Amino acid sequence: MNPSNPPPFDLSAWTASQLHTVEAALTRWVACPETSPAPAGLGDAMRYAVLDGGKRLRPLLVLAACEAVGGQPDAALRAACAVELIHAYSLVHDDMPCMDNDVLRRGKPTVHVKFGEAQALLAGDALQALAFELLTAEDSTVSAATQAVLCRMLAQAAGSRGMAGGQAIDLASVGKPISSAQLHEMHRLKTGALLQASVMMGAACGSPTAEGQQSLRDYGAAIGLAFQVVDDVLDVVADSGTLGKTAGKDAAQDKPTFVSLMGLRASQNYAQELLSQSQASLRAGGLNNTAALQALADMLVNRGF
Amino acid sequence: MNPSNPPPFDLSAWTASQLHTVEAALTRWVACPETSPAPAGLGDAMRYAVLDGGKRLRPLLVLAACEAVGGQPDAALRAACAVELIHAYSLVHDDMPCMDNDVLRRGKPTVHVKFGEAQALLAGDALQALAFELLTAEDSTVSAATQAVLCRMLAQAAGSRGMAGGQAIDLASVGKPISSAQLHEMHRLKTGALLQASVMMGAACGSPTAEGQQSLRDYGAAIGLAFQVVDDVLDVVADSGTLGKTAGKDAAQDKPTFVSLMGLRASQNYAQELLSQSQASLRAGGLNNTAALQALADMLVNRGF
Repeated sequence: MNPSNPPPFDLSAWTASQLHTVEAALTRWVACPETSPAPAGLGDAMRYAVLDGGKRLRPLLVLAACEAVGGQPDAALRAACAVELIHAYSLVHDDMPCMDNDVLRRGKPTVHVKFGEAQALLAGDALQALAFELLTAEDSTVSAATQAVLCRMLAQAAGSRGMAGGQAIDLASVGKPISSAQLHEMHRLKTGALLQASVMMGAACGSPTAEGQQSLRDYGAAIGLAFQVVDDVLDVVADSGTLGKTAGKDAAQDKPTFVSLMGLRASQNYAQELLSQSQASLRAGGLNNTAALQALADMLVNRGF
Repeated sequence: MNPSNPPPFDLSAWTASQLHTVEAALTRWVACPETSPAPAGLGDAMRYAVLDGGKRLRPLLVLAACEAVGGQPDAALRAACAVELIHAYSLVHDDMPCMDNDVLRRGKPTVHVKFGEAQALLAGDALQALAFELLTAEDSTVSAATQAVLCRMLAQAAGSRGMAGGQAIDLASVGKPISSAQLHEMHRLKTGALLQASVMMGAACGSPTAEGQQSLRDYGAAIGLAFQVVDDVLDVVADSGTLGKTAGKDAAQDKPTFVSLMGLRASQNYAQELLSQSQASLRAGGLNNTAALQALADMLVNRGF
């Protein structure tokens, strides 16, 4: 092998190794009956919501961004799990009858179908609290400064000017005409904010230059948007079995999507354009090790996450 | 006036002054249209849930405990508002049809009645995130170490081994026989954890001795329990107009309460006993200025909060 020409990055091997660590940490930290029991069935509902074979895109982004800046793995593992808990809680609440009223998630009954609505509401609430508990654990080796920054980033991305705000726009826009700008804003908040925060929280586990930070911020914005475009495309072209959730729901619910606004072909092209943007952003940042971030973006756009 | 015999503490004046600051801060920080707008009606629902003339017991406990340890007022104000946001979100979610299905709160329609269930769910979620955002704001003068400690305390008190866990026990216990120990455990988590956390977060804004900390922890536990005992008593003896919420609901829903378990008279005596315990705890701690904490405990037990 030519040493000046390194082997291509093996995303499968990298992902398998990272997921091994993430799943073990989630199993240990999420209402574990031995180490952190939760009463009256609440722990069962929380574990069901989290330990369900999700693809863990957000944790992988945290860990990949941490690698790109040579950050602290301990801090990144906590950040990775915290972001996943916020994502998991949002799915539990989104699926509830008063929201999307979905009964299938990742091929299994949703939390409220399995445990009842009240328990699902509480499990979501408790998972959000647990995210911030994980970030600030007393036995953590992470510095207080990093703990505080990670909490701030996560809270902003989850809250009214992030994910929850995007969901409010989504609610308000069902059945109404929506402009391209409004659709972008909705998704920038609804899914983009937490995906970008995943990247930036990984970065905050190290000490990137301002240039490196900007590069990662741009990468995060591009893949955050690409994720939603691809999601809209898959809702049209895939079946429920492949998706692990109910396909064709957007059209059935008359929800505005990139496909309904731009058409299928243009949406597919747009996803590729965003992938190129994300790769260009990474190259501009003077970062050391962006192989995992590059491969994750490619995977996200070309195979769906 | 005899200088060795200071005038009695004026709780009304103290409370009025503190509430002036707290209300102004909440108005500024909760989805304020000028400084921190939230989209699509979400901000309106959040403000409705918070800026509603609540009595602010938890913020007052934070501020009083901070005074007792000579702590930083800036940190205490953020902690006071953060705790109130957690309390407010819990009320919004508790009132929802899948939980208590209550239509009246503090004399007004509940959030889901006014804004719809989906918006109420999101507003609660966003308020929880905002609590952690307030504690870790970038423009804050609070040290990262204090920010991290406050986040940890609040997350633990709100989560599955705190408030959410207590609510899960509450859900599971409706219509079932419950022991005194189980009732105590339910309330220690459901309401006690956040009340005690209010006291301990106030303390964390200063540097109390270990003795002072223990004293405040014991005080917080006693008033946390007293609060629920008094609440159960008031549910029986007061009318809806006085309470600002539907009276007699516990019995109507066959919920276990201190009154149903111990009887009315014994519950009233128990509240007085807990008040004495709280006062004794304060005296044991070598703290400087516990007048506000003492007066708040007395107010809580003898007039209801």
